[in-house]
Amino acid sequence: MIKRKSKISNFAERVVGQSMFKILGKAKDLEIKGKDLIHFEIGDSHLEMPTEVKKSAMKALYNGRTHYGDSRGEHILRVAIQKAVKEDFKFTPSLSQVVVTSGANPLIYYVMAVLVNPGEEVILTDPAFVTYNAVLDMLKIKGVHVPVTHKNNFNFSPKEIEKRITKKTRLIVINSPSNPTGAVYSESDIRKIYALAKKYNLYILSDEIYASMVYEGKHFSAGVMDKCKERVIMTNGFSKPFAMTGWRVGYAIGPEEIIEKIALLSQTIVSCVPPFLQDACVIALSQRHEFSKRYFKEYKKLREIACRELGKVKQFEFSKPKGAFYLMIDVSRTGMDGDKFTKYAMERHGVVVCPGSGFGSGGKKYIRICYAASEKKLIDGCRRLKRAAERATKK
Amino acid sequence: MIKRKSKISNFAERVVGQSMFKILGKAKDLEIKGKDLIHFEIGDSHLEMPTEVKKSAMKALYNGRTHYGDSRGEHILRVAIQKAVKEDFKFTPSLSQVVVTSGANPLIYYVMAVLVNPGEEVILTDPAFVTYNAVLDMLKIKGVHVPVTHKNNFNFSPKEIEKRITKKTRLIVINSPSNPTGAVYSESDIRKIYALAKKYNLYILSDEIYASMVYEGKHFSAGVMDKCKERVIMTNGFSKPFAMTGWRVGYAIGPEEIIEKIALLSQTIVSCVPPFLQDACVIALSQRHEFSKRYFKEYKKLREIACRELGKVKQFEFSKPKGAFYLMIDVSRTGMDGDKFTKYAMERHGVVVCPGSGFGSGGKKYIRICYAASEKKLIDGCRRLKRAAERATKK
Repeated sequence: MIKRKSKISNFAERVVGQSMFKILGKAKDLEIKGKDLIHFEIGDSHLEMPTEVKKSAMKALYNGRTHYGDSRGEHILRVAIQKAVKEDFKFTPSLSQVVVTSGANPLIYYVMAVLVNPGEEVILTDPAFVTYNAVLDMLKIKGVHVPVTHKNNFNFSPKEIEKRITKKTRLIVINSPSNPTGAVYSESDIRKIYALAKKYNLYILSDEIYASMVYEGKHFSAGVMDKCKERVIMTNGFSKPFAMTGWRVGYAIGPEEIIEKIALLSQTIVSCVPPFLQDACVIALSQRHEFSKRYFKEYKKLREIACRELGKVKQFEFSKPKGAFYLMIDVSRTGMDGDKFTKYAMERHGVVVCPGSGFGSGGKKYIRICYAASEKKLIDGCRRLKRAAERATKK
Repeated sequence: MIKRKSKISNFAERVVGQSMFKILGKAKDLEIKGKDLIHFEIGDSHLEMPTEVKKSAMKALYNGRTHYGDSRGEHILRVAIQKAVKEDFKFTPSLSQVVVTSGANPLIYYVMAVLVNPGEEVILTDPAFVTYNAVLDMLKIKGVHVPVTHKNNFNFSPKEIEKRITKKTRLIVINSPSNPTGAVYSESDIRKIYALAKKYNLYILSDEIYASMVYEGKHFSAGVMDKCKERVIMTNGFSKPFAMTGWRVGYAIGPEEIIEKIALLSQTIVSCVPPFLQDACVIALSQRHEFSKRYFKEYKKLREIACRELGKVKQFEFSKPKGAFYLMIDVSRTGMDGDKFTKYAMERHGVVVCPGSGFGSGGKKYIRICYAASEKKLIDGCRRLKRAAERATKK
């Protein structure tokens, strides 16, 4: 018998998943035991996806669009994406610059794996979306973090980025609006970051999944700088803009040779994305402004409510987020860090949040809530958080 | 400016995709130019998926099962898989032994990545399904090949396996019925392979996606030997048994700690599998015997036709496949290898096949056809292949 140190591979030792799914799992266990919980942990909407898109999927399903499709994405959807980019960003990518994937999340792994070698470096914020750090760890890529804080709206400063560029830097991640912070970066800063990428010959991963949710200012994409031909890979998807998180359809626009490799990697892993879902995504894109308006209006209202209710909690510190549907709250004045407060709030006060530590060490004193909940639940949940903060402080 | 040798990572250099999708791409280019082609290259069925399953997906879609789901797979589907395993294999895996993924294909990557380190070894047949070799190359794992040939029904001999076991061996791949060869391994051989795995402390990946298509003999799973508790990972899915290739839903049963890591890896990459599709897969599983019967009858008939028609081609050599829906044909007597013959048959005779070289160097003299086509197309295509073989020989 051949003995080995571990049953699993070294790679598998580094695979840890997404922290919010872990919290969700714990919460479900409590619910099975009869606990009443309000959920703010997952970045999912309380709203339903557009009925028109559902109907279109049903039609395509009925019509037998259920066989293997093109692993780059169906031609019809790639043309629709091309058209949408032209309308929204005033440049027309070639069809070879467009790839459709199983959600926008896989693109984090695909882009990193295709562009960066183990030991090389990627610059991103701390805190940043959990999959970034999970993928960097998995691939043994060094995440070089720029600390961001609610004290200046979680701004991602070009100066701080430049200080951290080394010979090993390959990629800068721009996620605006940002998950978990809700920060929206200014056009001027994004232009400066692009200039740095050009100067030092780096790639930019521009994760724009929350682009349709900017409440103050305007969304600006680094992709317009080089038309995604040289160094910018724009990623987006249907999950967040249209409340279609369970569909798993996303897309990227980037330099042809990079997109080709992403498509081949996607082909090797998942083969293709369901054609009947892609057909329906064409409808979602063609009516995107109309659909987005509905969601936008609702989220904007909920943002006000969340800020108003949580603004009453004197132990909480946060800056009003300009985009996305999250609120990143500094809970250190409760005397607890984010992990402890999360556990305490869930077990003792029936409200589930996401501990900021899941987004990086700079998130330790924070909790993140997703405020895309019904008004009633949002208010109820905020009040539970208030009680939790007050009680925690007295402990 | 920091200069680098390559724009892409070393990993990306090794990502090549699936050869049949490349052929399909070339064929589509010819079709755009007006060429009439018959397609035998992709492992997809001409039959439609069960209407009952479509209806169930529509209902779930309508009912809003369109949000994030459990990344291990929906509870309801994992319970259905557990029940199906109990009925078909007489053992009951725990729910923690079951994971649902975006098709069975991703499981090749997930299992390899989770179990095998770069530089370690995996034993498999040559030829073998293209994704195996693609993933091994990507992950820098050494594929140790056992040559198999139509001369003895592509048999995967336990003796030949044992000769190749070294201190670096981690995993043996059993794919029965096999793609591309159609071989079905005997219970006695599979028991011997399991005994080797036990003796040398190895894992077995038992890829059973064609288990419902065995025309001679009986399907036997290595999973029954250890109830998937110790060293066997069974993989299966909905694509092939129910003509649902475009759905991308598959599953694995294996040791709990391995399944947990696969689920975390799947979570990191794709987040989850669409819940509304998983709901419908419950229906597919609960009526699987009834559904499979329809497909089985049709494929069995088409196998007879393909063997009859291609048996008339004196330049072709093949053994009648016992399972799956492929025929692996030695074309060396045409004076061409599989690559040349594929090009020649497509461009000059209007029939698209898959060159055997895509399945490993042992496949070079072969072409693979998928005979899941309408009777009319199958006969027409076989006659085109006959003409191609005859003309090729005269050249």
